[in-house]
Amino acid sequence: MPTINTNYQKLKAGYLFPEIGRRVKAFSAQHPEAKIIRMGIGDVTEPLVPAIIAAMHKAVDEMANRETFKGYGDEQGYAFLREAVAKNDFQSRNCDIAADEVFISDGSKCDTGNILDIFGPDNKICVTDPVYPVYVDTNVMAGHTGPAKENGEFEGLVYVPMTAENNFTPALPKSKVDIIYLCSPNNPTGATLSKAALQQWVDYAKANQAVIFFDAAYEAYISDPAIPRSIYEIPGARDCAIEFRSFSKTAGFTGVRCAFTVVPKSLKGRTQTGEEVEIYKLWNRRHTTKFNGVSYITQAGAAAIYTSEGRKQINEVIAHYMTNAKIIRESLTAQGMKVYGGQNAPYVWLKTPGQTTSWQFFDQLLSQCNVVGTPGSGFGAAGEGYFRLSAFNSRENVNEAMKRMKTL
Amino acid sequence: MPTINTNYQKLKAGYLFPEIGRRVKAFSAQHPEAKIIRMGIGDVTEPLVPAIIAAMHKAVDEMANRETFKGYGDEQGYAFLREAVAKNDFQSRNCDIAADEVFISDGSKCDTGNILDIFGPDNKICVTDPVYPVYVDTNVMAGHTGPAKENGEFEGLVYVPMTAENNFTPALPKSKVDIIYLCSPNNPTGATLSKAALQQWVDYAKANQAVIFFDAAYEAYISDPAIPRSIYEIPGARDCAIEFRSFSKTAGFTGVRCAFTVVPKSLKGRTQTGEEVEIYKLWNRRHTTKFNGVSYITQAGAAAIYTSEGRKQINEVIAHYMTNAKIIRESLTAQGMKVYGGQNAPYVWLKTPGQTTSWQFFDQLLSQCNVVGTPGSGFGAAGEGYFRLSAFNSRENVNEAMKRMKTL
Repeated sequence: MPTINTNYQKLKAGYLFPEIGRRVKAFSAQHPEAKIIRMGIGDVTEPLVPAIIAAMHKAVDEMANRETFKGYGDEQGYAFLREAVAKNDFQSRNCDIAADEVFISDGSKCDTGNILDIFGPDNKICVTDPVYPVYVDTNVMAGHTGPAKENGEFEGLVYVPMTAENNFTPALPKSKVDIIYLCSPNNPTGATLSKAALQQWVDYAKANQAVIFFDAAYEAYISDPAIPRSIYEIPGARDCAIEFRSFSKTAGFTGVRCAFTVVPKSLKGRTQTGEEVEIYKLWNRRHTTKFNGVSYITQAGAAAIYTSEGRKQINEVIAHYMTNAKIIRESLTAQGMKVYGGQNAPYVWLKTPGQTTSWQFFDQLLSQCNVVGTPGSGFGAAGEGYFRLSAFNSRENVNEAMKRMKTL
Repeated sequence: MPTINTNYQKLKAGYLFPEIGRRVKAFSAQHPEAKIIRMGIGDVTEPLVPAIIAAMHKAVDEMANRETFKGYGDEQGYAFLREAVAKNDFQSRNCDIAADEVFISDGSKCDTGNILDIFGPDNKICVTDPVYPVYVDTNVMAGHTGPAKENGEFEGLVYVPMTAENNFTPALPKSKVDIIYLCSPNNPTGATLSKAALQQWVDYAKANQAVIFFDAAYEAYISDPAIPRSIYEIPGARDCAIEFRSFSKTAGFTGVRCAFTVVPKSLKGRTQTGEEVEIYKLWNRRHTTKFNGVSYITQAGAAAIYTSEGRKQINEVIAHYMTNAKIIRESLTAQGMKVYGGQNAPYVWLKTPGQTTSWQFFDQLLSQCNVVGTPGSGFGAAGEGYFRLSAFNSRENVNEAMKRMKTL
């Protein structure tokens, strides 16, 4: 019998969202009349905008004719999309990123997991707490950790807390680390890293020869012009950072699947004997050997957001979600709750009242208000006593949920 | 500086297709008037059929309305597609495969690489020679091999030759192996494994507790009813085989990206201490943690091939390519060449004349006939002296190429 990757056995059996699903299902079975409002999982609800729809119909038609049919595209993506990304998302913000440093993919979840393939097994990994669980789970799977501890943390990882006490700006690690995951705007807390805070991390990375995995999947939700949308706005970041971006939340692509990863050519790693190696070349090799590109139809749709019409349309959808976030913030604040995030991010992160645990609050909200959210403790030990509400919803549902939550 | 995965440094710099591209480009620059016919890379040329186009337009329209919009789907794929696959590709052929054993993905190249994630590092790996290079390269990347040897083989892998001498039916390995890659219809040789030959491999796998990775990406090209289209037609295969399938060559999806992997629940692996573990659960965990599903539009298009209209339409396209293969076979045979494959596969595998090497034949074909093919030696040491021609082309190009090759 072949041996298995036994690191998988270190993973906890109950991932957060299946457990939420289980509890909601049990409640619904007992209360079939309850009209449940789901503000848990961060999934978009608004349809694709007309510019994207038109581009996709056109692309489908191109696939119907021999003269315009597309077979295999470059694994790294079509030039039209890589160039649009480099120009609009980076060069227009004075970030020195070239089109061939942009790798189009089918999702940031995939990319943040797959990126570990090209790094060595001996790097010290740093994550924030709370954290997007995929960062941790993929490191466990890759054998970069010891077993899980009592509190859910994994041995061998360095956790830096991100709580109200430090204003959700994680402090630099006390011990030297080699790989650092940062997510801004943050999932789950909705916090953002200021230019100064991000500069500190870049300085740390350069001083310690570490690499930052910067997840900016929610950058489109930043409205404050002072907050960096890309880590490459920070001097020196080209030499120490990989950035992950997605069309999922920017353009409603959660069911369409398109994202990209930026790997600057100036980023270096080393062999165990100290030889320097371009990370870019390794990722290019991984991407061309273990991936075969994103659907032409999807890429054509994604490119439509870089037209002036497309941009205007997606901005309206983003404004809709951010108005939802504002309604949630203001309503809960008026009730005397401590509320964070939701200003430059589609997530509102609230402090549960008194000593209520995250899961207690989940059960209370579900049974009393028939509203589903996400327990903060599901994102890490430091998330205990917090709770995430997503602004991805219809206005009607948000208003109704806030009305119900007044009874809490 | 973070350490890198130094296994990448064992990979050979020049992958086959980039080298072909380089030589074709150089020739074109010197002979800009030459009308080059490309029969090298195995990429489809015919447009998507009307049933798929209609299903995709409908799916795009669904994404334009809030009521029918789809956000995240199940990572494993939509039930409508998993059920259509299980019923039409397996149950209709008396293969005992359930819908929830089918994992929809964005490509077999990805799946055959990613599957290694869930296995241990100490398994003995067996590949045929010649072989689809991705099987070897992903094992090198995962650290399952030693360095490359002089002849291009990697230390630590077990190679079983597949040549005219054994009628392209590889013999069972002499030493015990744990993981076996089989591809039928075969890329690159165009050979197929008979029921008896496949039964031998299943018997070997069961006796030696090995697992077979069965790549059936070209099964739609089998016309002989005696040849198995799925390994699950062989008794016992549910306990020892994972099957990879793709819509790329079946439905012209090379630029659309949809495939699937079948992992039976009865398949087991073991920990180093001998505990049995369901491979299914590991793959499900991998698939849900490091992948986020295939575009709804793509899955809707793929499902259209299981309608009677869609099936009829794709069969016509497959018949077109197979007529191309017949023309190539007959034309080259009439010239006195030794020709294999091309009867139940879209690839024709020819023996180069006399002592001509694969690359010498490549250069001769390019310069004398302006036709591009793929040197057999690019697929492994035992491919030396062979050459692959792809039947994926227009009839006009195939006829013209055969006319030109008469001058050889």
